[in-house]
Amino acid sequence: MTDSATLLISCSDRTGLVASITDFIFKNDGNILHLDQHVDVESNIFFMRVEWDLSTFKIWRKDIETAFTPLAKSFNMTWQLHFNDNKLRMAILVSKQSHCLYDILSRWQSGEFNVEIPVVISNHPDLEPIAKKFDIPYHMIKVTKDTKVAQENLQMALLADYQIDFVVLARYMQILSEDFVTQFPSKIINIHHSFLPAFIGAKPYHQAYERGVKIIGATSHYVTPNLDAGPIIEQDVARVTHKDSVQDMIRKGKDLEKSVLSRAIWYHLQNRILAYNNKTVVFN
Amino acid sequence: MTDSATLLISCSDRTGLVASITDFIFKNDGNILHLDQHVDVESNIFFMRVEWDLSTFKIWRKDIETAFTPLAKSFNMTWQLHFNDNKLRMAILVSKQSHCLYDILSRWQSGEFNVEIPVVISNHPDLEPIAKKFDIPYHMIKVTKDTKVAQENLQMALLADYQIDFVVLARYMQILSEDFVTQFPSKIINIHHSFLPAFIGAKPYHQAYERGVKIIGATSHYVTPNLDAGPIIEQDVARVTHKDSVQDMIRKGKDLEKSVLSRAIWYHLQNRILAYNNKTVVFN
Amino acid sequence: MTDSATLLISCSDRTGLVASITDFIFKNDGNILHLDQHVDVESNIFFMRVEWDLSTFKIWRKDIETAFTPLAKSFNMTWQLHFNDNKLRMAILVSKQSHCLYDILSRWQSGEFNVEIPVVISNHPDLEPIAKKFDIPYHMIKVTKDTKVAQENLQMALLADYQIDFVVLARYMQILSEDFVTQFPSKIINIHHSFLPAFIGAKPYHQAYERGVKIIGATSHYVTPNLDAGPIIEQDVARVTHKDSVQDMIRKGKDLEKSVLSRAIWYHLQNRILAYNNKTVVFN
Amino acid sequence: MTDSATLLISCSDRTGLVASITDFIFKNDGNILHLDQHVDVESNIFFMRVEWDLSTFKIWRKDIETAFTPLAKSFNMTWQLHFNDNKLRMAILVSKQSHCLYDILSRWQSGEFNVEIPVVISNHPDLEPIAKKFDIPYHMIKVTKDTKVAQENLQMALLADYQIDFVVLARYMQILSEDFVTQFPSKIINIHHSFLPAFIGAKPYHQAYERGVKIIGATSHYVTPNLDAGPIIEQDVARVTHKDSVQDMIRKGKDLEKSVLSRAIWYHLQNRILAYNNKTVVFN
Repeated sequence: MTDSATLLISCSDRTGLVASITDFIFKNDGNILHLDQHVDVESNIFFMRVEWDLSTFKIWRKDIETAFTPLAKSFNMTWQLHFNDNKLRMAILVSKQSHCLYDILSRWQSGEFNVEIPVVISNHPDLEPIAKKFDIPYHMIKVTKDTKVAQENLQMALLADYQIDFVVLARYMQILSEDFVTQFPSKIINIHHSFLPAFIGAKPYHQAYERGVKIIGATSHYVTPNLDAGPIIEQDVARVTHKDSVQDMIRKGKDLEKSVLSRAIWYHLQNRILAYNNKTVVFN
Repeated sequence: MTDSATLLISCSDRTGLVASITDFIFKNDGNILHLDQHVDVESNIFFMRVEWDLSTFKIWRKDIETAFTPLAKSFNMTWQLHFNDNKLRMAILVSKQSHCLYDILSRWQSGEFNVEIPVVISNHPDLEPIAKKFDIPYHMIKVTKDTKVAQENLQMALLADYQIDFVVLARYMQILSEDFVTQFPSKIINIHHSFLPAFIGAKPYHQAYERGVKIIGATSHYVTPNLDAGPIIEQDVARVTHKDSVQDMIRKGKDLEKSVLSRAIWYHLQNRILAYNNKTVVFN
Repeated sequence: MTDSATLLISCSDRTGLVASITDFIFKNDGNILHLDQHVDVESNIFFMRVEWDLSTFKIWRKDIETAFTPLAKSFNMTWQLHFNDNKLRMAILVSKQSHCLYDILSRWQSGEFNVEIPVVISNHPDLEPIAKKFDIPYHMIKVTKDTKVAQENLQMALLADYQIDFVVLARYMQILSEDFVTQFPSKIINIHHSFLPAFIGAKPYHQAYERGVKIIGATSHYVTPNLDAGPIIEQDVARVTHKDSVQDMIRKGKDLEKSVLSRAIWYHLQNRILAYNNKTVVFN
Repeated sequence: MTDSATLLISCSDRTGLVASITDFIFKNDGNILHLDQHVDVESNIFFMRVEWDLSTFKIWRKDIETAFTPLAKSFNMTWQLHFNDNKLRMAILVSKQSHCLYDILSRWQSGEFNVEIPVVISNHPDLEPIAKKFDIPYHMIKVTKDTKVAQENLQMALLADYQIDFVVLARYMQILSEDFVTQFPSKIINIHHSFLPAFIGAKPYHQAYERGVKIIGATSHYVTPNLDAGPIIEQDVARVTHKDSVQDMIRKGKDLEKSVLSRAIWYHLQNRILAYNNKTVVFN
């Protein structure tokens, strides 16, 4: 796993794409470990994720980008190159609820998530003891309507200081400004506590109870300036019945939120997600 | 199963309800086969379904209603009495797609559905051969914007002629008028091909594809004058990925539609559904 | 919720059971909050769970048992009376894996589990730091083939010292002796990492991988002297494909284990489980 | 869809496989529509499914096999070439239960299954009327212990006469002899009414009821000489509770059987399944 690289590619579909890319790896003595490709026929967009062993690869890590660039240009590719032993740096934003935070931190501590977590940021003091349990710095930045701009600037400064690669909103109950969001394209993962696009906005379990649905859900997505409308990464559902009160739905929903958010983080860490046209390709 | 009765009851919650109702059955030598109750604490409404053996019951079938009325009045109950060997008469309305119709007819023929199906009505001729395979009269009543009122009157006359108890819209692609709908309260079951309240209206799979959801669904509900907004009886979901085209979603969705509609019919036939406040209690 | 009581009852089915029990509550001015009953028709066994409000109940808590005894005797009931503000005391046994322990402790800390957790016991030192994070005493009792009897005696002494009501095996990788198990009938909850009865015993994910199943599962059950054969409380499943290695199955399985074990604990805490004939009735 | 070909390939994993295969298609002006590959790392086996557009392909259909052979030999591939407008010929074997038969025939008639169904064979007369409804010849071949060899010979003669490509056991309740089975490797699809490997053999729902499971399942698999032990193609599950009798499990299970069998047929028809080591790779 450690001495391998991943290419994530998208471009207009043309014949010869797979042949050319795999030939590049093969000719340089790379062994393909995983290859996934997809063509969105309607949009005529080609997507590919290929992971290969670097131990026998003839090109040095530092030279791969240069070596691949001519091929990438000839197909007009959008592409990312990742080395799989590189640990990303993830910030977690929370409010008062602890279930997602505990779930993420315990996965991180057990080694399931290969990630650095340099900071937890919150608009409330409540979860500081949890961050402390895991020896992670906790910054309380209270956000109100009047202070939002200033406080978001503080948050962004913190993210820069901690050299954060991507941000997880683990039931962070504030809406980020467009300014904030556009600085992290496909780099802010949110968990929404409903089966989107049903029940956008506040109190989705109350909305679900009111509507009398028989199934509730949770949705993880990349954050875009439109509320709860970004590209969906993962969803899951649970059955409810007439016996379930709003409180029961909230309790059952927490389990969905935990697992749906953690799966999205796992896909992101594995460089398995390509966002386009407000959707995602998730190679899993 | 055959020599038994079911009471479906709802009323304001008060102490003594279960005791009084079960005592009524017990004192008359009935043996309770199934009992379910539920209290909607927010609305303070009590719901109950009780099924008991009539073979030892001291009151004749024809006299049960009279015997129960005083108790029902004292608690101001809304109630229904059903004899479980009574076969309901169900009309099926279809358009062009056959999957739900086949599914219903094969369940009926194998004895899974204890129901009479005296008629299939459609606005298209396409499915007549299927009705014929099962020796069921098929009436083609073409509906256009201009002829809607007249044609619905024809439909309602047919339903009356065939002494229909309840109607199933098995992918019937027309919107019934308020006039029609209000004549069959909690007696028209529709299948909507989305996970309501997401994707109300036309072409829900296209909407789901566009939104990039990772799970699709189907919803059966009682029809009310508000489009796709009636009390939900049953829902189910299936996973989709970026690989699934709209056509794949339609194919996977058909399986959901079949099973979700058939489960709703089954609950209805078993007198397990109580609709209230635009929701349902489903005792299953 | 706090000032209420729950009766869990089982006995041979006879007419008049529900009427008599609900009449007992009604006559003493209790208001029924929840009532569930079930008859196992094959075995002719009646089961009931009834929860009622004590705030208006005419009988003092300490006298309810005496007051109910004559009725219980007349139907030859097996029964339990629980007061819902009583906090049970739960011991957790673990080995080296942390995911279930973290999940349980975070639910407990957030108030989702209304329980005391006075002690964590393990045959390994690995998880002591986690217990410490939550200020729970951790006892390391190493078990080997030779020391098993003596060490189990130590464990049982600890459970007695801590006045433990029930035990949770949160991926505790030792098989408890018959002697131990029979002291806690329906009071030891285990999580087995397969969809029982498939893949009993060691390394179930390896077995599942070898067999090429498309779905894996997890099962929580009460422990009986027969390995992995006790009454099943809850199960859940997750899809796998040919792409999933044993390690992937283990990772996906951990999420199942967490949620399936926690649901079993939740049902147990709510007095919703009746075990009989090596099965369970779970009123949920 | 029609003017396309699919290659299904397996061989020992080596570098250059994907590059060589895709280069073969690219150099001959084929446009890849779908490509899936998988490496079983433990067994070091490479699997690939590639589907490409023939409309621009420079090699005539009849010459593709010859053209591809050198490459196939150099990697020692096991491979199949399919033209996607070729309709396979499928025989259905049934006993007395109709649900799977109806489900298959209605999918076939609506065009969902691109297949010929020249014959239905049964050991009972019961389902002849259904085959007749769809104008499919029905052969009743009664099988008893004494006549099994002779009757299986009759069945095999029929399959040969009708030029059958593969066989579907749609709840056919007889065990096929090793002789029969070995003539159709990976060409007989069975539906077993349990979540294999749990509840092998007769009356799985009764076994499931007895064991008190909370989830039941169904499994489609290729038939091998070992009963219910062939490579699993697809599985699915449904929740049950203590309220579900064996009859309820059978009813719920029928829905699983229908959909799980039909999904297996669909994968088979799309040439998406590769069986090896008593497992399957299903490219879906």
